[in-house]
Amino acid sequence: MSEHVYKIIELAGSSPLGIEQAIGNAVAKADSSLRNLRWFQVNEIRGQIEDGEVAHWQVVMRVGFTLDDEGEGKT
Amino acid sequence: MSEHVYKIIELAGSSPLGIEQAIGNAVAKADSSLRNLRWFQVNEIRGQIEDGEVAHWQVVMRVGFTLDDEGEGKT
Amino acid sequence: MSEHVYKIIELAGSSPLGIEQAIGNAVAKADSSLRNLRWFQVNEIRGQIEDGEVAHWQVVMRVGFTLDDEGEGKT
Amino acid sequence: MSEHVYKIIELAGSSPLGIEQAIGNAVAKADSSLRNLRWFQVNEIRGQIEDGEVAHWQVVMRVGFTLDDEGEGKT
Amino acid sequence: MSEHVYKIIELAGSSPLGIEQAIGNAVAKADSSLRNLRWFQVNEIRGQIEDGEVAHWQVVMRVGFTLDDEGEGKT
Amino acid sequence: MSEHVYKIIELAGSSPLGIEQAIGNAVAKADSSLRNLRWFQVNEIRGQIEDGEVAHWQVVMRVGFTLDDEGEGKT
Amino acid sequence: MSEHVYKIIELAGSSPLGIEQAIGNAVAKADSSLRNLRWFQVNEIRGQIEDGEVAHWQVVMRVGFTLDDEGEGKT
Amino acid sequence: MSEHVYKIIELAGSSPLGIEQAIGNAVAKADSSLRNLRWFQVNEIRGQIEDGEVAHWQVVMRVGFTLDDEGEGKT
Amino acid sequence: MSEHVYKIIELAGSSPLGIEQAIGNAVAKADSSLRNLRWFQVNEIRGQIEDGEVAHWQVVMRVGFTLDDEGEGKT
Amino acid sequence: MSEHVYKIIELAGSSPLGIEQAIGNAVAKADSSLRNLRWFQVNEIRGQIEDGEVAHWQVVMRVGFTLDDEGEGKT
Amino acid sequence: MSEHVYKIIELAGSSPLGIEQAIGNAVAKADSSLRNLRWFQVNEIRGQIEDGEVAHWQVVMRVGFTLDDEGEGKT
Amino acid sequence: MSEHVYKIIELAGSSPLGIEQAIGNAVAKADSSLRNLRWFQVNEIRGQIEDGEVAHWQVVMRVGFTLDDEGEGKT
Repeated sequence: MSEHVYKIIELAGSSPLGIEQAIGNAVAKADSSLRNLRWFQVNEIRGQIEDGEVAHWQVVMRVGFTLDDEGEGKT
Repeated sequence: MSEHVYKIIELAGSSPLGIEQAIGNAVAKADSSLRNLRWFQVNEIRGQIEDGEVAHWQVVMRVGFTLDDEGEGKT
Repeated sequence: MSEHVYKIIELAGSSPLGIEQAIGNAVAKADSSLRNLRWFQVNEIRGQIEDGEVAHWQVVMRVGFTLDDEGEGKT
Repeated sequence: MSEHVYKIIELAGSSPLGIEQAIGNAVAKADSSLRNLRWFQVNEIRGQIEDGEVAHWQVVMRVGFTLDDEGEGKT
Repeated sequence: MSEHVYKIIELAGSSPLGIEQAIGNAVAKADSSLRNLRWFQVNEIRGQIEDGEVAHWQVVMRVGFTLDDEGEGKT
Repeated sequence: MSEHVYKIIELAGSSPLGIEQAIGNAVAKADSSLRNLRWFQVNEIRGQIEDGEVAHWQVVMRVGFTLDDEGEGKT
Repeated sequence: MSEHVYKIIELAGSSPLGIEQAIGNAVAKADSSLRNLRWFQVNEIRGQIEDGEVAHWQVVMRVGFTLDDEGEGKT
Repeated sequence: MSEHVYKIIELAGSSPLGIEQAIGNAVAKADSSLRNLRWFQVNEIRGQIEDGEVAHWQVVMRVGFTLDDEGEGKT
Repeated sequence: MSEHVYKIIELAGSSPLGIEQAIGNAVAKADSSLRNLRWFQVNEIRGQIEDGEVAHWQVVMRVGFTLDDEGEGKT
Repeated sequence: MSEHVYKIIELAGSSPLGIEQAIGNAVAKADSSLRNLRWFQVNEIRGQIEDGEVAHWQVVMRVGFTLDDEGEGKT
Repeated sequence: MSEHVYKIIELAGSSPLGIEQAIGNAVAKADSSLRNLRWFQVNEIRGQIEDGEVAHWQVVMRVGFTLDDEGEGKT
Repeated sequence: MSEHVYKIIELAGSSPLGIEQAIGNAVAKADSSLRNLRWFQVNEIRGQIEDGEVAHWQVVMRVGFTLDDEGEGKT
């Protein structure tokens, strides 16, 4: 923990399957360009309705990652 | 999108199965009397406990639908 | 309902499986020492990320139970 | 509790007498056109001042009722 | 003011022109079916972006109206 | 309503008798030095406990009054 | 005031009579098992509706008490 | 910036023309009696409806000004 | 909508002209370096006061854009 | 405590040294013109950055004082 | 992290010295009766004013600890 | 101030020493890769507890900086 600094970004993930999958999609997408993802926190759960059913689940969330000395990029 | 006006109502759905099902039940119920449901947003997730287990999941949510010229009724 | 008094405590449950399971784990744990659990309310949904996936789901929640004349202990 | 769906509306009641009476007036008014009122929750307490005294107490509140299969109308 | 009861509904208006016009559109739409509109309160200002410009302004708002003895309908 | 400007101040009233009396005491006190009090809005209800009973009810509230051309003073 | 530490618990009291009585019931119940109750703060006012009237007033509140060296128990 | 102390007051401005004008009216009014106004922050946007149109725009806002050694009065 | 992931950033735009122009300036600036801007949401409206008038309108807002496979850069 | 009425004002203090000093500066400034200051409550902690360091700590806070019969002035 | 359950309690610490010391006092007091304290989160910073200076700093905070199988007691 | 646009990012700094140091660490880290840092605002103060003492202070904060025409990079 020492004196690390974390950066927190806000993402919105979506999925036709459910809440956990929408979160998982956003985490996977963030992981493709950012190293050191550590935690997430849900801000808002919402969704699109089509034909009387939930067609897409959407989760707005904050994702935190460690800022280390090599920068944010993932290699 | 033009100049549509949306109305937003607040519903609470419940289900013994889980959070997504409680939301789905409320959407299905609203769909039986309202046309043009478009989106929902979760306000609160809660539930009843019986015998040390979650017996009913309850989700309080806002549901938005388009107000068109034929009124709110579904025919 | 009469004139019962309820006490509300705050718990954080976790699970590698999902949101409902994290809630269920916290309820089961509380049930092992408290009688008369009645309801819960979710305050916050968060989680730990490892290797680009959600490794642990964490739910911070309030749990309410009846204060009866025999005290809080479960026997 | 099963799989009922509840609708929640927002009302503002007023009374020259006090907070409980303003709430009671709104509940009575809602009861005249809606069946199955179940609970209320206070959002805001305010009032009008005249001649250095509270002339009207006003309570903004949410009122929940069960949506059953016969519709919202009271007969 | 006496003992009137008000009902408050939530609407979202939109307009390509600006914030006041989005509010005005929602008020005009509500006025076409509800009598006795009295006040509104803005909950959220948002909009859609197209080609680097704001294409639609959207305002989510609460609108209050008096519940009188003849019901909500406008004739 | 025209183009009046209102000022809103925050007060905390207290009373051994109840919530309405604590509000009434703060309104009466404000009325002794300010003209044109118009409305109040409750921010917080709290109190002091002595010997297992509520000894003083305290209400933190905002009070609005019209700013007219003669200044705030009451004569 | 010196260096005392206070603990704050959350309770929900209820009463068929009114808001102050619901608060008073919760304070009295807490006083039967905790020493040194000092203050309360209302979080939420709600109630159950039966037959078009408020049948039970419910107040969710935080209650603070001094933690002294002899522990929380009341003897 | 040094060690200045600022005071922040809450005002509500109104105008039949729009949101910016309601803010401008409140700022102009405050400027007539207070020196050193520095910034404002909008708390709430609301309005009165008459004949299906917005008749008065109302903006509740906080206004900050520097407290200097000569007091608040404007000369 | 499928399984897109959106990123949301926070910006503060300013303008001497008004609220819509401050928002428009921030959107135009973001559009110069980011592709696929989709929506904005206002967090806070504030401003600087000079000589008793609003000199600069400032709007703090969140802006959402699609994360696609080619990265965030605009070419 | 009896039936005192308190007034609460909002101040922003600043200091190059730290958070406690910014609060202390605001309290000292308020004390120079107001009698009977009793408590403060922090609303917001912020600051100005210059050359990669915090140059000024700023604390927005509410300060409460007793309204007694001789008025607010300090003599 | 596995499937631990945490309990979160609310404390208010105080100190004549400063904010960190008020927090430290509450943590030390909680540690004397609870095992496995893990984290805290500040809810509110306030204080008492005497003679124009901050006499006591008060911090209301939530403290989390692991619920393990041997119960909450510290031995 | 003119028509500058600011970007606001969220960081969490930590330090074993105290709140100001945790903030200072986050500012210093941000300054190593971003030009034109202007202000910060504290969102949350928390910390880790070890052996009955605060082992790490953590501050979640928003940091604002000017977006100028040369981009965000620091050279």
